[in-house]
Amino acid sequence: MAGSVLGNQFVISTWGESHGQALGVVVDGCPAGLELSAEDIQKFLDRRKPGQNQYSTPREEPDRVQILSGVFEGKTTGTPISLAVWNTSERSGDYQSIADIYRPGHADYTMDQKYGFRDYRGGGRSSGRETIGRAAAGAIAVKILGQLGISILTYTKSIGPVSISSENMNPEQMKESPLCMPDKKASEKAEDYLRRKMDEKDSSGGVIECVVSGVSPGIGEPVFAKLDAALAGNLFSVGAVKGVEIGEGFSAAGLSGSENNDGFFMDADGKIKKSSNHAGGILGGISDGSDIIIRAAFKPTPSISAEQKTVNKNGEEKIISIGGRHDPIIVPRAVVVVESMVAVTLTDQIFAGMTARMDKIKEFYK
Amino acid sequence: MAGSVLGNQFVISTWGESHGQALGVVVDGCPAGLELSAEDIQKFLDRRKPGQNQYSTPREEPDRVQILSGVFEGKTTGTPISLAVWNTSERSGDYQSIADIYRPGHADYTMDQKYGFRDYRGGGRSSGRETIGRAAAGAIAVKILGQLGISILTYTKSIGPVSISSENMNPEQMKESPLCMPDKKASEKAEDYLRRKMDEKDSSGGVIECVVSGVSPGIGEPVFAKLDAALAGNLFSVGAVKGVEIGEGFSAAGLSGSENNDGFFMDADGKIKKSSNHAGGILGGISDGSDIIIRAAFKPTPSISAEQKTVNKNGEEKIISIGGRHDPIIVPRAVVVVESMVAVTLTDQIFAGMTARMDKIKEFYK
Amino acid sequence: MAGSVLGNQFVISTWGESHGQALGVVVDGCPAGLELSAEDIQKFLDRRKPGQNQYSTPREEPDRVQILSGVFEGKTTGTPISLAVWNTSERSGDYQSIADIYRPGHADYTMDQKYGFRDYRGGGRSSGRETIGRAAAGAIAVKILGQLGISILTYTKSIGPVSISSENMNPEQMKESPLCMPDKKASEKAEDYLRRKMDEKDSSGGVIECVVSGVSPGIGEPVFAKLDAALAGNLFSVGAVKGVEIGEGFSAAGLSGSENNDGFFMDADGKIKKSSNHAGGILGGISDGSDIIIRAAFKPTPSISAEQKTVNKNGEEKIISIGGRHDPIIVPRAVVVVESMVAVTLTDQIFAGMTARMDKIKEFYK
Amino acid sequence: MAGSVLGNQFVISTWGESHGQALGVVVDGCPAGLELSAEDIQKFLDRRKPGQNQYSTPREEPDRVQILSGVFEGKTTGTPISLAVWNTSERSGDYQSIADIYRPGHADYTMDQKYGFRDYRGGGRSSGRETIGRAAAGAIAVKILGQLGISILTYTKSIGPVSISSENMNPEQMKESPLCMPDKKASEKAEDYLRRKMDEKDSSGGVIECVVSGVSPGIGEPVFAKLDAALAGNLFSVGAVKGVEIGEGFSAAGLSGSENNDGFFMDADGKIKKSSNHAGGILGGISDGSDIIIRAAFKPTPSISAEQKTVNKNGEEKIISIGGRHDPIIVPRAVVVVESMVAVTLTDQIFAGMTARMDKIKEFYK
Repeated sequence: MAGSVLGNQFVISTWGESHGQALGVVVDGCPAGLELSAEDIQKFLDRRKPGQNQYSTPREEPDRVQILSGVFEGKTTGTPISLAVWNTSERSGDYQSIADIYRPGHADYTMDQKYGFRDYRGGGRSSGRETIGRAAAGAIAVKILGQLGISILTYTKSIGPVSISSENMNPEQMKESPLCMPDKKASEKAEDYLRRKMDEKDSSGGVIECVVSGVSPGIGEPVFAKLDAALAGNLFSVGAVKGVEIGEGFSAAGLSGSENNDGFFMDADGKIKKSSNHAGGILGGISDGSDIIIRAAFKPTPSISAEQKTVNKNGEEKIISIGGRHDPIIVPRAVVVVESMVAVTLTDQIFAGMTARMDKIKEFYK
Repeated sequence: MAGSVLGNQFVISTWGESHGQALGVVVDGCPAGLELSAEDIQKFLDRRKPGQNQYSTPREEPDRVQILSGVFEGKTTGTPISLAVWNTSERSGDYQSIADIYRPGHADYTMDQKYGFRDYRGGGRSSGRETIGRAAAGAIAVKILGQLGISILTYTKSIGPVSISSENMNPEQMKESPLCMPDKKASEKAEDYLRRKMDEKDSSGGVIECVVSGVSPGIGEPVFAKLDAALAGNLFSVGAVKGVEIGEGFSAAGLSGSENNDGFFMDADGKIKKSSNHAGGILGGISDGSDIIIRAAFKPTPSISAEQKTVNKNGEEKIISIGGRHDPIIVPRAVVVVESMVAVTLTDQIFAGMTARMDKIKEFYK
Repeated sequence: MAGSVLGNQFVISTWGESHGQALGVVVDGCPAGLELSAEDIQKFLDRRKPGQNQYSTPREEPDRVQILSGVFEGKTTGTPISLAVWNTSERSGDYQSIADIYRPGHADYTMDQKYGFRDYRGGGRSSGRETIGRAAAGAIAVKILGQLGISILTYTKSIGPVSISSENMNPEQMKESPLCMPDKKASEKAEDYLRRKMDEKDSSGGVIECVVSGVSPGIGEPVFAKLDAALAGNLFSVGAVKGVEIGEGFSAAGLSGSENNDGFFMDADGKIKKSSNHAGGILGGISDGSDIIIRAAFKPTPSISAEQKTVNKNGEEKIISIGGRHDPIIVPRAVVVVESMVAVTLTDQIFAGMTARMDKIKEFYK
Repeated sequence: MAGSVLGNQFVISTWGESHGQALGVVVDGCPAGLELSAEDIQKFLDRRKPGQNQYSTPREEPDRVQILSGVFEGKTTGTPISLAVWNTSERSGDYQSIADIYRPGHADYTMDQKYGFRDYRGGGRSSGRETIGRAAAGAIAVKILGQLGISILTYTKSIGPVSISSENMNPEQMKESPLCMPDKKASEKAEDYLRRKMDEKDSSGGVIECVVSGVSPGIGEPVFAKLDAALAGNLFSVGAVKGVEIGEGFSAAGLSGSENNDGFFMDADGKIKKSSNHAGGILGGISDGSDIIIRAAFKPTPSISAEQKTVNKNGEEKIISIGGRHDPIIVPRAVVVVESMVAVTLTDQIFAGMTARMDKIKEFYK
C-alpha cells in the first residue's frame, strides 16, 4: 500500500515535494488514441496556480508542465504518460527557523513520528503543492470523460458562514468570482468575510461541491468499490478535507424514508427517470443516471500569523507565528483538485466496469 | 477492481446473497499465532442479528458462523481464514411479486442496469445481509488491534432529530439501549420518535460515531492512502451511508484557523500532546496519538410500507407498498458494521506502515 | 500482498487446508449472464481427483463442489461466486508421528520458519489439495474463454526421461492415457518407468505443455504485466513447478536471430500470419494471434517411502521414510491445474485489456 | 492492471520511450532514512549503458540519472523517489523508413494490434531502453537488501552454445569479461562465437544466472505470491526472456525424488542446514536459508542485418535488413536488469512478510 499510487485500470503515481526539484505524476492505463497536448494539462494547473488574487499566497511559481512520455504525434500511445513541473523557488534556508517546530494543524509532528525525520521545507510532501500531480492527472481524466459525454462542474459552495443560494446560483458568475463561487452576491459577502479574517491574521474553511452530468446508469462496483465509496475516499485523500457527503448527505440522517426516497417515473422519451435526487445520483453504489452530487468540507488553512502555542522536536514549548503570506483560504484553489479527483475516480470505475456483462464482452471481442 | 475484495496486507473477500445458500468472507493476511474461536466472531454477528427488539426486522436467522479454514488448534495459522454463515430462510417465492419492480431508494434499478438482470430475492447481494462478511472480518481485526493496545467504541449518535448530548454520554448506558445510544434520555426520546415513524409506516436515518483509542502516532500512508481517506472510503462502502466526517468534520468548514487548530504541549510525563482534538486524531493523513473520531450518516431505511410511486422493468408506472416488517431504522444494527470497517481499515494500515523506516526494518530482521 | 488472492479484474481468493473442514475459492469479477452449473466445475475437479489409477494416491475424497453464491437461476449474477469442497478424511491423528519432522522437499521447515508453527496434517495449506480452489476457478475461466472462441489443450509432455514425440502426438490418445499423454507409445513407456520408480520406493517429475488457440492479437499489458510474464508467474505459483518456458523457451538461448525470428506473411485470406512460431504466440508481451505455447517443469513428488536424512523441530537428526501411499508423480493430476492457471490469467488479461484504445471505449459506451 | 506499475509495498512505476524526451521510474514505498545518492543509481545504469565494447550498440547515450524527489539531505524521506534520465538522440527521422514495417521478433505488429498505432522510433516503449527504470529502481532495492545482509551475484551463464563451467567459475574474472562471464576461458570462446555471428549479420541468445545470498528462511507468501513465482513472473517481464527456472529447474523434471530432495542436517553451530540445494533456496514458495539460484533464458537479438521476410502495415510483403549497428547479444547488458528485478521482487516480498506473525508484530509496536 504505497500511498502515492492510486487506481486499478487508470493508475496515477504522484511524486514531489514543495521545495524539491520538481513535482509530477505518471499516468498508466490511459487508452491510446486520445489527443493530448501540454496545453490541455496546463489549463488545469493554472486553475490551482498561486498568486492569482489577494486570497492566495503570492509565491511566484510558473508551474509549467512538461510531457515526458506517452504522447506521440499529438496522441496518447497507451504507454505511461509522465508529467513534470519544475520548482523554481527552492530556497530551503527560509524554512530553517521552523525546521524543528511542529506547526499546529500541519503534518509536521506526524511525519516526524512516522518517518523519523522529514523534509521541513514548506511542508515537503505534505504541502498543497503535492496536488499538482493530481490536477495534471485530472486534466487527462476529464478529457477521457468528455469523449464519453460526461461533464463536471465544480465550485465553491461556502466559505466560512457564507453559502451560495440555490436561487442565485449561476455557473457563469463563477468565472468572475476570485473565490470560484457561482453566485455573485455570496461571493462578495465571502470576500468581505475573508478580508476580515486576514485582518485578524486568521484563516477560513469552506465547502466545495461537484456535479457530474452524463454518467449512464450502471457505473460502480459493489461492495467495497462502490462508486460513492471510491469518490468519497479519494476526495478525503486531499489534504484539509474533513468531511464528504453525497446527495442529501448528513441531512439524510434526519429525514424519514418517505422524504428521502426518490420515486421513479417514465419520462416523455420512455426512459426511466427519478422524480428527485436525494440520493445524489448513486443507488447501492452504482450510478442511477441522475447527476452525481458530492461535497467536500475543507478545514481552515492551518498556517496563520496569529500566535499559537506549540512544541518543538526537542519537547520545548514554543509560541509560533507563521510569517510570510499564506492562503487565508485554500478552497478556491482546491476546486480543480476536487474536480480532478472525481474525474480520476470515475474514469477508473468506468474502465473497471467494462467487464460486468458477458454479452457486452462477447460483442466487444467480435 | 473486483468490488468485493478489500485491503492490501489484511485482505477480506466477502461473498453471498440475502437468500442464497450462505454468506461469508475469506480473510487473507491475518498473522499467525492469534487465538481465535468461532465464539469470538459470533459475538460480532450477534450484534447485527435481526429480531432482537421491536426496531429491527423479525426475520428469524440464527446466523451461526463456521470457521472453515485458517485456524489450527485454536490459533490462526497465517493462511486464509474462511468464515461462512448459512441462510435458513431461502424462500424466493416471497419475492416474486416485486421481482420486476424497482423499489425507490434501493439498488434494484441500478443492479439491473449494470448486470442486465439481478437476484431479486431480498435485494440479493445489495441486501444488508452482505455486511455479515464485514462483521465477521471485523471481529478478527478487533482482536488483532486489541493485542496492540487499541480499543474501539462505536455507538449511535443520533436518530432522526434526536441526538445524544456530550454531558449525558455514558457508554455503560449503551448496553441497555435497544438503539445503541450511550445516553439513556436520548435513547428514550429516539424510541418515541421511531414508534411514531413506524405508526406512519415510515422509517428514520441516523448517525453513528466511532472513537478509536490507543493508536500510536505515525499510522497512515500519505498521499492517497491517508488513514482518514481509507477510513472514510471504507465506511462509505457500507450500504446507506451518505456522509462521513472526521473530528470537527463539516463544522470545520465554518471555523477559522485559530479556532480549529489543535495546539501542542508537553504533558506531565514529558510526552507531546494536543490541547484539543478538532482534527479527530489525524494530521496529514497520519495518526497523531489522540483518539480517532469518525462519524457516518445513514439514510433512512428505504423499505417503507407507505405507498410510493415507481416503475417496473417493463417501463410501467406502479404504486408500491413494501409489505412484511422491515427495520424502521438500520442504525443500531449497523453499529457493529461501522466498528468492523474501522477495525479492518486500521489493521491494514498498521500492517502497511511497518516498512516506513529503514532503522526499524533492520531491527526487525536482526 | 496477501498470497492467496490473485488477479485484478478477474480475482480469485482460494482457501483451505488438506485436513481442515473444507477448501474453496471466491471468484470476484466474473461477468453476469454466464451459464454456470456445479457440473461445469465438477468436471474440472474430477480431472484432479485422487485415486483414479495406480499412479495417484488412493486417498478417498469425493471432492464434490457446492456453489454457495453468485449464481441465480442458472446464470452468474456478477457478484462473487463462492465455491466449496468439503474434506471427508480429517483424521489429524495419522500425522502426529511426523508433526515435528521436516520432510525433505516439503514446505514443513519453511512454514515453521515463517509462521512460528504450522498445520502439520498432510501439509496443511502447502498440500496439493490447495489446488482445488485453482481448478474450480479455472473451470469458470475456461467457460468465459470458450464464449470468446478460445480453447486450451493441456497435456503431459514428459515423465522422467520419457517424452512424447511430435510425430506421434494425438490429442485423442490422451483420454486413454492414465498419465494424460497424447502419445500412446510414450504413455506406455512412461508407465513402465513409473512402475520401476514405485518399486524403488521413489518418484518422478515431468513436464506439462499447454497450447492456447484462438487468442486474437493484442492481449497483454506491457511492461510488467506482459502476457507471458503473467502466465509464467502464475504457473510458477503451482507447487512443485521449478521452471516455465514459452515457445522455444530455453532452447532460444542457443539459437541465432535468423533461426529464432518468426517471419510474417500474408495468408490466402489477406491476414497477417507468422511463418513459424518460435515465439510461442507472444511478442513484446502481447499475443500475436498464433497459438500460445507454454511449458512447466514439475519436480518429482517429494514424498517417497525410501529412507531420507532429515531433522526435527528440536534440531535432532532423524531418518524418515514416508509411509502410506503417495502419488509417485503429480504431473497427470496437475494437468488441469496448469490449464486452470492459464485460463484464469488469460481471462484477467483480456478483461484488463479492454481499455487499451479510446475508440473502442467510445464505441462500447455508445 | 496498468502494466507499468509493479509491487505492493515497494512499488515501482516506470515510464518512457526509446526516443521520447526522457525515461524514468517512480519508487514508492522506499523506507525513510536510507542513504541514497545519484551515484548509487548511476552505477547500475552504467552497467547497462550501450557502447562499452564491440558487442553492444554504439549508440551514444550518457544516461545520467537525476533524483527529482524523495531524498533530502542525502537520505530517503519515505516519500516517492522520482528518477529521470534524459534522452539525447531523439531523431525520429532515422526510423521513418521502417515506421510501417513489422520487424520479425519485435513487438511492432502486436503493439499496432493492441493500440491501433505506435511510437515507431526505435521500438518506443518496447525498446530495451525501457529497462533504465528497472535498473534505477533496482539500485535502490539492492541498497535496502544490503542493509539486511543480503547480496546478489548475477552473471552470464551461457552465450549461444558456450557455457561457463562450475570448475572454472570465478566471480573476479567477470570484471574483465566484456560479456560478464565469470570464467575467462568460456568468455573468450563466447567472444569468438559472437564475432562469427556478427560476421554472419546474425545475433545470439544466452542465459543469465543470479545467486542471492543471505536471505533468512521464511520469506515468500504462499499461495500465489510464492517467492519463486514472484521472481519468475518479474524476470519474465524483461523483454526477450523466454524461460525461467529455479534451482535444478527443468532438469528436476527428469530426476527422481530421492535424487532431487535436499536432506536436512544440523551444522556445527546447531543450525538447520540442507545437504544440497536442488531446490534453489525455496521450498513451498518460501526461502529456506540456502542461496536462491535462478536463471533466465534470453532469445537472440531480433534486430539482424541479414535479410528477413516480413509484411508492412498495409499488408504488403517486404524484405527487410535492419541497418545501423545493433547489439549482437543483449545478455551482458541485461545482467544488471536481471539483478534489479530480483532485488525489487525480494524487497517487496520481505516487506510484505513483516506481518506474518502476531508475536513479531506486537514486539514491533512495543
